[in-house]
Amino acid sequence: MKIKLTISYDGTEYKGWQVQPDYPNTVQQIVKNAIKEITGEDVTLTGSGRTDAGVHAEGQVASFVSNSTVPAKNFYRALNTVLPSGVKVLASEQVPDDFDARRSAKKKLYRYSVYLGSADKPLKARYAERVYGELDVEKMRESASLLVGEHDFKAFCASGSEVNSTVRTIYYIDVIQNGEDVFFNICGNGFLYNMVRIIVGTLIKVGKGQLDKTDVEAMLTKLERSYGGQTISPKGLCLVKVEY
Amino acid sequence: MKIKLTISYDGTEYKGWQVQPDYPNTVQQIVKNAIKEITGEDVTLTGSGRTDAGVHAEGQVASFVSNSTVPAKNFYRALNTVLPSGVKVLASEQVPDDFDARRSAKKKLYRYSVYLGSADKPLKARYAERVYGELDVEKMRESASLLVGEHDFKAFCASGSEVNSTVRTIYYIDVIQNGEDVFFNICGNGFLYNMVRIIVGTLIKVGKGQLDKTDVEAMLTKLERSYGGQTISPKGLCLVKVEY
Repeated sequence: MKIKLTISYDGTEYKGWQVQPDYPNTVQQIVKNAIKEITGEDVTLTGSGRTDAGVHAEGQVASFVSNSTVPAKNFYRALNTVLPSGVKVLASEQVPDDFDARRSAKKKLYRYSVYLGSADKPLKARYAERVYGELDVEKMRESASLLVGEHDFKAFCASGSEVNSTVRTIYYIDVIQNGEDVFFNICGNGFLYNMVRIIVGTLIKVGKGQLDKTDVEAMLTKLERSYGGQTISPKGLCLVKVEY
Repeated sequence: MKIKLTISYDGTEYKGWQVQPDYPNTVQQIVKNAIKEITGEDVTLTGSGRTDAGVHAEGQVASFVSNSTVPAKNFYRALNTVLPSGVKVLASEQVPDDFDARRSAKKKLYRYSVYLGSADKPLKARYAERVYGELDVEKMRESASLLVGEHDFKAFCASGSEVNSTVRTIYYIDVIQNGEDVFFNICGNGFLYNMVRIIVGTLIKVGKGQLDKTDVEAMLTKLERSYGGQTISPKGLCLVKVEY
């Protein structure tokens, strides 16, 4: 049977989602190991997509085929008995055989968290990036709206990534301020390497008045990474959910 | 001059606030060391009160006397350059010489955080305790209201603690549910050893139907710890602020 897992992880201590030969400490490897410990099976575990080292997930999705007799609905409990505290499976269910966590994904929602302040806050620093000074939220929203829709996001992609197409669709970007906390909720049909972190790094420069919407327009039309802001740190980024 | 510090810490890695000869890893010791590194002074650092190992703080307050030439308002920045990421000073100011972080404290606000669920959530587990099943918030509020006011909280105090009086005043207990998250905001003029954790452990048993308000009444009248719920884990507890 084909099983779908919804997985949450604190990315702080892990080398990202994707299995890497030199690093045993990737989330995909850790979940594969747990499945092997419970079922004895060495499965192919397909994730909805990669997350970089340090990026968190509330709802990463992965799928695999198992011949185990463990009922699909109970699989998550069995896996959690052997998973470390930083990686847990929140739900498991049987899905049709043609389900594929990567190819079947329709939408992904990421959230980037920052907080404003002149000192690091130990209780926020693990999951959010600190920004010194003020952010003009209206200006950030205005620039964010330019990115919504189908665009060539080549300028929002780390160099060296190999993809067939750099065209993606963003369904919405919500910029929400709650006191000193600012959240960027970014939903799209898929994201290029570092794309969310480059979008947020660019919007923050807009919020600080160091870039403006003409720079964001230039990124979309001239397709040049150099017009944008820096790639912001991974620790504020969280893959919230994947829709199918 | 007398200086007041507002300090935040992630208690996960520390042996609580209070200096202990056998453990260098207490917050008080770490802040004292930072002051010595910046000013050369071996100060007496008075905290508003102890927090147990594993308990967090958004706004612990401490005071000390310094002859340093560093302006009081800038002290926090200097200290943060040498403090570890888990302990930071959010603000510093000069206060009258008779200010004492412990004796001058009028009110303390603690927050205890739990979340409901059948699996641990890595992104919540550091700062909240998981509760399996449902909690009856109305019943918890009803029992919490019994604790508001001046009472002898002897039954809400860990055994072995030595205090002159076990009478304290609780100003309010707010029980707030937001989806799967439940917060207990508890404000009082002072708290006995483990008092907040025993209150929350008891209220959770009420919320689960394992205790009811007559048990809470018995704790207040018979002063017997054994009527209450367990002392809940420190990781969900945070000292939010101290008022003067």
